[in-house]
Amino acid sequence: MHIDILTLFPDMLSGMFNTSILKRAQEKEKLSCNLIDFREYAANKHKKVDDYPYGGGAGMVLAAQPIFDAVEAVTNEQQERPRIILMCPQGELYTQKKAEELAKEDHLVFICGHYEGYDERIREHLVTDEISIGDYVLTGGELGAAVVVDSVVRLLPDVLGNTASAPEDSFSTGLLEHPHYTRPADFRGMKVPDVLLSGNHAHIENWRRRESFRRTYNRRGELFYNLDLSEEDQILLDEIKKNQD
Amino acid sequence: MHIDILTLFPDMLSGMFNTSILKRAQEKEKLSCNLIDFREYAANKHKKVDDYPYGGGAGMVLAAQPIFDAVEAVTNEQQERPRIILMCPQGELYTQKKAEELAKEDHLVFICGHYEGYDERIREHLVTDEISIGDYVLTGGELGAAVVVDSVVRLLPDVLGNTASAPEDSFSTGLLEHPHYTRPADFRGMKVPDVLLSGNHAHIENWRRRESFRRTYNRRGELFYNLDLSEEDQILLDEIKKNQD
Repeated sequence: MHIDILTLFPDMLSGMFNTSILKRAQEKEKLSCNLIDFREYAANKHKKVDDYPYGGGAGMVLAAQPIFDAVEAVTNEQQERPRIILMCPQGELYTQKKAEELAKEDHLVFICGHYEGYDERIREHLVTDEISIGDYVLTGGELGAAVVVDSVVRLLPDVLGNTASAPEDSFSTGLLEHPHYTRPADFRGMKVPDVLLSGNHAHIENWRRRESFRRTYNRRGELFYNLDLSEEDQILLDEIKKNQD
Repeated sequence: MHIDILTLFPDMLSGMFNTSILKRAQEKEKLSCNLIDFREYAANKHKKVDDYPYGGGAGMVLAAQPIFDAVEAVTNEQQERPRIILMCPQGELYTQKKAEELAKEDHLVFICGHYEGYDERIREHLVTDEISIGDYVLTGGELGAAVVVDSVVRLLPDVLGNTASAPEDSFSTGLLEHPHYTRPADFRGMKVPDVLLSGNHAHIENWRRRESFRRTYNRRGELFYNLDLSEEDQILLDEIKKNQD
């Protein structure tokens, strides 16, 4: 996969691409990345990339020209049009399903604004996707792009080792994970539940399933609405509900 | 505000703290930050921070000892207990409301795991908050902590300039922003809507309000459920719904 990130603050992201999973993916040649300062594409002598909004109002607006030209520069030798992703609060809420969709692509281009709005013509005529990572305000699109890149790259074949990929299995059940414990069995008087030390695998599995249901019910009950529960699961959920009330 | 981030990958975050808003907040002495490699607190000669899970299963679990000791090292001279925030998929979904709450604190401590689960005793006996930035899987808590820090620091007094703070006003209406345009009025044949060039401020305000409603209805209709709409707003929304059907 090749990733281009258009930003006014490439230094904000460079540390991330030299660390951990993104570094490993590049070393394994599963990933190549470019951080592009789109200010370099501004066609005016002051390299200005923003301007006042038509119709008045506070704030500045990122102009169409530098973004169009930068995107064209990174895509003009492509046979197929890549996904061109605008990071913005108005975008669709990012989910694991979207990560899986993007992980099938060969080329992703991210556009990251900073503080400001985008000229609407970028949205209407240039991008293929608009993504928001959540309902909170960030100073720019850089962290959003970093989140999307991290979640996508870890899904690429052969990027994660076996040990690291385990949490995904858990997430894919649609429930929150059960509690984990590791040594020591007694840490400052705080003890590991007896069942986990019992060696009885059926009991352990039952305990984990129940704790996963309990945690999901208590913290994110709405997640159950998207699940097809077996009869057994439904009995367990009803029991948990009853005990909490 | 003082922020401590406990991580095994401090390099992943250092670029961010030397750029943009976080750099500015530190220069203005509104913010001080420490990136702490909690591996340094591991009380074993191999500096191992994780171990196999009790009860079996794939994946490793971050042990309680290094995390407890690192948190205690950064909090032991505090009069008041700071907020100790665990970044994890099981946490509460992060929102702008939570950002506003955290922005009132003097000291935040973030714990970032990587790949692995946390020993449950960290959750139960050490942390004050568990936060998830969204329903997707990341390789670690670092990007989540970066997102929370960015969204909180921009809310601190005197950190953002006036120009930059405008988008917040828009977000605070609970609706998605209306489209923005800047020069030129005609970019490669793509034109700015006439109303924005009219100079008629009442018309411009009406157009913006309608476009904000339309975009919110089309993209994130559920956001209307949390709003108290005036009679006028309700009429506008009904009209938009009717035109779309």
